[in-house]
Amino acid sequence: MKTYPKKDYPLIDIRRHLETGPIVLVTSNWKGKTNIMTMGWHMMLQFSPARFGCYIWDGNQSFAMIRNAKECVINIPTVDLVEQVVGIGNSTGRQLDKFKAFGLTSAAADKVGAPLINECYANFECRLADAGMVRRYGLFVWDVVKAHVAISPKNPKTLHYRGQGQFMVAGRSISRKDKFKPQNL
Amino acid sequence: MKTYPKKDYPLIDIRRHLETGPIVLVTSNWKGKTNIMTMGWHMMLQFSPARFGCYIWDGNQSFAMIRNAKECVINIPTVDLVEQVVGIGNSTGRQLDKFKAFGLTSAAADKVGAPLINECYANFECRLADAGMVRRYGLFVWDVVKAHVAISPKNPKTLHYRGQGQFMVAGRSISRKDKFKPQNL
Repeated sequence: MKTYPKKDYPLIDIRRHLETGPIVLVTSNWKGKTNIMTMGWHMMLQFSPARFGCYIWDGNQSFAMIRNAKECVINIPTVDLVEQVVGIGNSTGRQLDKFKAFGLTSAAADKVGAPLINECYANFECRLADAGMVRRYGLFVWDVVKAHVAISPKNPKTLHYRGQGQFMVAGRSISRKDKFKPQNL
Repeated sequence: MKTYPKKDYPLIDIRRHLETGPIVLVTSNWKGKTNIMTMGWHMMLQFSPARFGCYIWDGNQSFAMIRNAKECVINIPTVDLVEQVVGIGNSTGRQLDKFKAFGLTSAAADKVGAPLINECYANFECRLADAGMVRRYGLFVWDVVKAHVAISPKNPKTLHYRGQGQFMVAGRSISRKDKFKPQNL
């Protein structure tokens, strides 16, 4: 399966890949066992430090692993991984090695114990910044501490979930840069 | 400018239009003055009650209006409103009537004081559920109390912000419904 050669990416710019609202794959590692979950409820919270929030359902196997490890990696798949995205979202890591089952390969992260998915376009290493909203809202607040993004293409064909088993695939790009105030870019 | 005839929409299904991560226009009303802001940092938090979170920068004119009113409307524009999205995001409502300045028309909401934008594809009326994370994270938690969504098209060409003045326009739809467990749909 295709892997993406990546470069270190400025943390201040990660909104370019997260604000569009893609489905992501969240990897975790707890006591030597890794897992992957599909996740679509997330948002940027701050530019610097780079902060990101996401909802994780407490029924997921990944929930306890991530809460215990206080780390995860947010991996961004493109449309060529749609079968993996759906398969991972519809299976449990309780008895399954999802990397093996779905033909994905991993690399060690630099700053966290959770693995990077080589076949994803981007990988964001995250450390837990605030667990205070987990009980009430299932909301984890993360500091992104390291970003790896593919060298090309510039505008990946990400997947955006519409519910009911349907995805929107990222379409064309348009620029209105000339209409922005410089401080708003 | 084109307006969208709309129908009442089930609150349980609003994720279909929000989880994809579109740029939205947030309308507010405080003491008879209305305003509009462009916003891209938001996420679903719960299906039922329908709950939604968003970040609002405290430098925005809308911030104080929305915090005081404890209500807003989340309006979803399509690509035909890109000039409005950019213009609204790069101007302030302090001395400008943004409806008038950007050629938009309003309708009264059913359950909140903030106005609906007729030219948007969908309008979600929101009441503040939790302001406890506003000071620390700029994060407002909303209960969506009424939804209005256009009768057609089914898959709107929404705008998704990439930063640097660039937008991704919603592309084609693909279905993998047959690969989902029924409880996951």
